Amino acid sequence: MNANPGPLGIDWFIAHPSFRTYALCTAILGLKMLLSAIYTGTQRQRHQGYINAEDARTFGHAGARAGSEETPAVAHALRIQRNDLENIPLFFAIGLAYVLTGASPLGAVTYCWTFTIARILHTIAYVWNLQPWRAICYGIGTLALLGMIVHILIVTL
Amino acid sequence: MNANPGPLGIDWFIAHPSFRTYALCTAILGLKMLLSAIYTGTQRQRHQGYINAEDARTFGHAGARAGSEETPAVAHALRIQRNDLENIPLFFAIGLAYVLTGASPLGAVTYCWTFTIARILHTIAYVWNLQPWRAICYGIGTLALLGMIVHILIVTL
Amino acid sequence: MNANPGPLGIDWFIAHPSFRTYALCTAILGLKMLLSAIYTGTQRQRHQGYINAEDARTFGHAGARAGSEETPAVAHALRIQRNDLENIPLFFAIGLAYVLTGASPLGAVTYCWTFTIARILHTIAYVWNLQPWRAICYGIGTLALLGMIVHILIVTL
Repeated sequence: MNANPGPLGIDWFIAHPSFRTYALCTAILGLKMLLSAIYTGTQRQRHQGYINAEDARTFGHAGARAGSEETPAVAHALRIQRNDLENIPLFFAIGLAYVLTGASPLGAVTYCWTFTIARILHTIAYVWNLQPWRAICYGIGTLALLGMIVHILIVTL
Repeated sequence: MNANPGPLGIDWFIAHPSFRTYALCTAILGLKMLLSAIYTGTQRQRHQGYINAEDARTFGHAGARAGSEETPAVAHALRIQRNDLENIPLFFAIGLAYVLTGASPLGAVTYCWTFTIARILHTIAYVWNLQPWRAICYGIGTLALLGMIVHILIVTL
Repeated sequence: MNANPGPLGIDWFIAHPSFRTYALCTAILGLKMLLSAIYTGTQRQRHQGYINAEDARTFGHAGARAGSEETPAVAHALRIQRNDLENIPLFFAIGLAYVLTGASPLGAVTYCWTFTIARILHTIAYVWNLQPWRAICYGIGTLALLGMIVHILIVTL
C-alpha cells in the first residue's frame, strides 16, 4: 500500500468539478433542512403546540399540556419538512449517481444549482403561503431530478 | 494534474458493474418516488382534499376550502410515500456503501434488483390494498437491506 | 481495460479509514432504522391500531377494525421514525460528501461516531419519554452534521 493509495482527498475532488458542485449543493441543502427543523421547533415553542407530554413539562410555559394532534402552525411547518423529505434525499442519491456516471461539469452545475435554488425558493414560498409560486418551484426541482434520472438511465441501460 | 485525473466518468463506472447496477436501481427507484408524489397530487386534486388554504384557492374548484386534516384518499397516498421514505433513502445509502465496500457484481445484482422490484410491487400492493402481499414485499425489501448491512458490518468490523 | 480497473473493492476502502468509518456508521444507523420500523409494527399489533382496512382484516384479532387516525402508541412510534427521517438520511449524504472532500481519519471518527451514538441515544430517550435528554441528543447530532457541513463549505467554496 503506497502513501497515496487512492482517489479520495483534496486532490481528487478538486480534479472533479462536477463532484465539487454536488458536494457544495449537498451542504447547502443540508443546512436548509436543519434550518427548517429549527423553524418547526420555533413554531412549536411559540404556539405551545406540544404532542409529547414530556416536552410540554420540560419546555412549555407553566401549565402547558400536550395536545392529541399538532396545532395548525406546527402542522404547516411539518408539511414543509415532509415535502423536503420527499425531494432532497432523492437529490442526494440521484445527484451523486449522476455525477459518478459521468456528468459534465456544465451539466452538474445546471442540474444541481437549479434543484438547490428551486428547493430554497420552495421553502420560502411555503412559509409565506405563496401559490402558484410554491408549485412552480416544486415543478422545477422535479424536472431537475428527472433530467438527472434520464441521464443515468441512458448511460446505464 | 493530468487530463484524466481520477476514477470518475464513463470509463470508471463501465469498469464497475456493481456500481452500474446500483446507479440504475437508484434511478428507477427515484422515478418511482416521483410517480408516487404525482399519485398523491392526483388524489388531492380528484378528492379536492386541500390542507393549505392557498392551495384550495389556487387549484381547487370554485368554492373549494382547505380542511383541517387530510381526506382518506390523500392520507392513503401519503402513507405510501411515508413507507417509501422509511425504506428507499436507506437503500440509497446502504446500497452505495455495499458497492463501495467491495460487493461482487452478482451480489449487487441480487440485492439491488430484489430491493427495487420488491418496492415497486409494494407500491402496487398498497395502491390496491392487497394484503398480505404488501407485507411480503415489505419483508423482502427489508431482507435485502439487511443482507447488505451484514456485508458492510463484516467487511468494516 | 485491465483486470483491476479502478478504485473500488476491498483494497480501496481498507486504504481509506475515513470511508471505512462512514460505511460502518451507515450500516449501524440503517440497522437502527429497521429496528425502529419493527418497533412501530409491534406497537401497531399490540394496540391493534390499524389505519388500513386490509391490515385490520389480515393481521388484526377477530373483529379488529381500522381507525381513522393513528392510536397514541403508534403515533408516538411514528414520531420517532419521523425524527430519524429528518436527520439520518442527512447524515448519509453529508457524511459521504465530508469523507469524499478529504476528511481526516480523526475527523471522520469524531463526527461519524458522535452522530451515530447521539441518534441511538435519541431513540432510547424518545421510547422512554426522557427529556431533556432527548433534546440534548438531538442537539449533539445536529452539531455533528453542522460541523461536517462547515467543512464541506470551506473546502468547496
